[in-house]
Amino acid sequence: MMAMTARSSTSLCLRRTAAGRIEGVPKVGVVVGWARKREVRGLCVKGDGDGNQVSVDTVNGRKVNGVIHGSDASLHMGRCMGLGNEDGGGMVSVDSFKLGRFVEDRFVYRQAFVIRSYEIGPDKTATMETLMNLLQETALNHVMSSGLASDGFGATHEMNLRKLIWVVTRINIQVDKYSRWGDVVEIDTWVAASGKNGMRRDWIIRDYNTNRIIARATRETRMLSKIPEQVREEVQPFYLDRKLIHESNDDKIDKLTDETAENIRSGLAPRWSDMDVNQHVNNVKYIGWILESVPMNVLEDYHLTSITLQYRRECRQSQLVESLTSMTASDTEETSSCKPDLGSTHLLRLQEDKAEVIRARAEWRRK
Amino acid sequence: MMAMTARSSTSLCLRRTAAGRIEGVPKVGVVVGWARKREVRGLCVKGDGDGNQVSVDTVNGRKVNGVIHGSDASLHMGRCMGLGNEDGGGMVSVDSFKLGRFVEDRFVYRQAFVIRSYEIGPDKTATMETLMNLLQETALNHVMSSGLASDGFGATHEMNLRKLIWVVTRINIQVDKYSRWGDVVEIDTWVAASGKNGMRRDWIIRDYNTNRIIARATRETRMLSKIPEQVREEVQPFYLDRKLIHESNDDKIDKLTDETAENIRSGLAPRWSDMDVNQHVNNVKYIGWILESVPMNVLEDYHLTSITLQYRRECRQSQLVESLTSMTASDTEETSSCKPDLGSTHLLRLQEDKAEVIRARAEWRRK
Repeated sequence: MMAMTARSSTSLCLRRTAAGRIEGVPKVGVVVGWARKREVRGLCVKGDGDGNQVSVDTVNGRKVNGVIHGSDASLHMGRCMGLGNEDGGGMVSVDSFKLGRFVEDRFVYRQAFVIRSYEIGPDKTATMETLMNLLQETALNHVMSSGLASDGFGATHEMNLRKLIWVVTRINIQVDKYSRWGDVVEIDTWVAASGKNGMRRDWIIRDYNTNRIIARATRETRMLSKIPEQVREEVQPFYLDRKLIHESNDDKIDKLTDETAENIRSGLAPRWSDMDVNQHVNNVKYIGWILESVPMNVLEDYHLTSITLQYRRECRQSQLVESLTSMTASDTEETSSCKPDLGSTHLLRLQEDKAEVIRARAEWRRK
Repeated sequence: MMAMTARSSTSLCLRRTAAGRIEGVPKVGVVVGWARKREVRGLCVKGDGDGNQVSVDTVNGRKVNGVIHGSDASLHMGRCMGLGNEDGGGMVSVDSFKLGRFVEDRFVYRQAFVIRSYEIGPDKTATMETLMNLLQETALNHVMSSGLASDGFGATHEMNLRKLIWVVTRINIQVDKYSRWGDVVEIDTWVAASGKNGMRRDWIIRDYNTNRIIARATRETRMLSKIPEQVREEVQPFYLDRKLIHESNDDKIDKLTDETAENIRSGLAPRWSDMDVNQHVNNVKYIGWILESVPMNVLEDYHLTSITLQYRRECRQSQLVESLTSMTASDTEETSSCKPDLGSTHLLRLQEDKAEVIRARAEWRRK
């Protein structure tokens, strides 16, 4: 049994003819196939006969210097099936499992996920942590598939040369409906400039079955210095300025104190498995800590419908954290179509010196 | 956009002809298609024209009273593609995302997974928790797809009538190679009788690319009472007595005490997200607690190559837990082909009354 990759000269893309018949179309190197016709407009792909690396000269009419990795070939290969193994069981390219591809003139990256049994919480629906994990996975695959990634974790080639990284400053997620085990969700993501040195990433999550948008999210990242021109040239061809979440200008989150917090949970310690590859606490894990100081009856009786996190400081494994929460009446600002039933304000701070790690604000709706 | 299910009369299975050409084969209700010929031997499937529910009379020549749910249809539909949507992007059945199917005369259930970015640890490889999660997901999908599941969480119809559950008593996982982000793994699982009132489940994990077995696992579950004959009749047609892990008879794990433990970590508190749908701590989460008392240099410099957990007691959210570890020399018993470099013994106990939750033993190899 051998996995089939784009490298194989026997790989087949299946396409529907005008008459509705299915044809096998042998492909070597050139990755078109399942792309919608307008998806490849302005995209010049040169196959090198290898399929794992093809150079892209233009995206949307602008020159880019990216390299398409194997996973990019899979964007289109994702809908192709190799059929060459002896047991007739239908051998599928490794890349095709990723279920991700570019759509909308390559401005939008789209990936599907099945909600797994261990991604649901006590109420049998996907947790907020799960949603954030899936958003993060889609974002990373977007960057990898664009050919811009140098390290697999979001930095471009030019950023890597200059040892620059993106720092997440803010994320907002709004959830209308939580998925259940076995549900398939489809996530779209795209990026745009944000101010002089920032980047904004948006996501929408659709239920694959109903095609209904069930959640949307937006994230701000910044460089700690001015964005170098070379980096701007790398990323700009991918920018799509389409906002789905219109937030008010007043997005300030009050800082909770020992006096204003209703619940304080101390002694929260990062676990070994909470660390990311940079030895920082994984951004998503903070959600769990925030929930630790939310009253149990709220966790049990309400759905978290919106959460905004403002990241202030990294947290390392040796540091203990305190979680502060204050529940507020339902007169919080409306950011979603339905007025929430409860609001809450949160602070995560280092236990030792009370330095702020995260401020957060959330909205809840009765189950 | 509409998801295509087996219900659709336009669903197509693609199969390779002798000459290697691809043909579209319209299917209604009858779910064969991608199954290997010998997979369907002895399996009598009656399509009802609906496709979501077809009755199975015999599996491996024995009568079974199961109902195949939608997800079972997908076992075979998983390799089929519907191509009816207007954008030509290749609409795929929701079920096909699950990437699971029966093989080997339906005795073995096989599912593929992509390792996601948030499933890797600080050393960039899939964590032991991730492996256990994937094993659990495969097991649940196996039960669901067999038509035996009544609740989606492992109990059969007859068990549900009697309010019986399986209790996990022991699990052993042996890992030769940890996968990385983007790797595809293929997991096979099957079940067999174990003693009078037990069931044994085995798994192997293969790297999809190399087809090499990279991990194997076995788990014992028991019923707290005698297995009723009706339940035995439900599950027996699926039994396959194939052992991959040959353990010594002496599988006793010493109980650590305050005196014999080298490291004790107290105050471990279940997080809200650690709970399963039964309001118990998720079995997999215990791994994280065990690792909390393992010395940092071991976590950093060694791979966990084998771990055996003996479950003694459930843990609820309000209970604090202590993790005890004692590292041992490399003369631990060999259970894998390579001698480990380090061994360790562990105990998780309730902080309040020191009641045992889990005993564990592990083996480590230098990275």
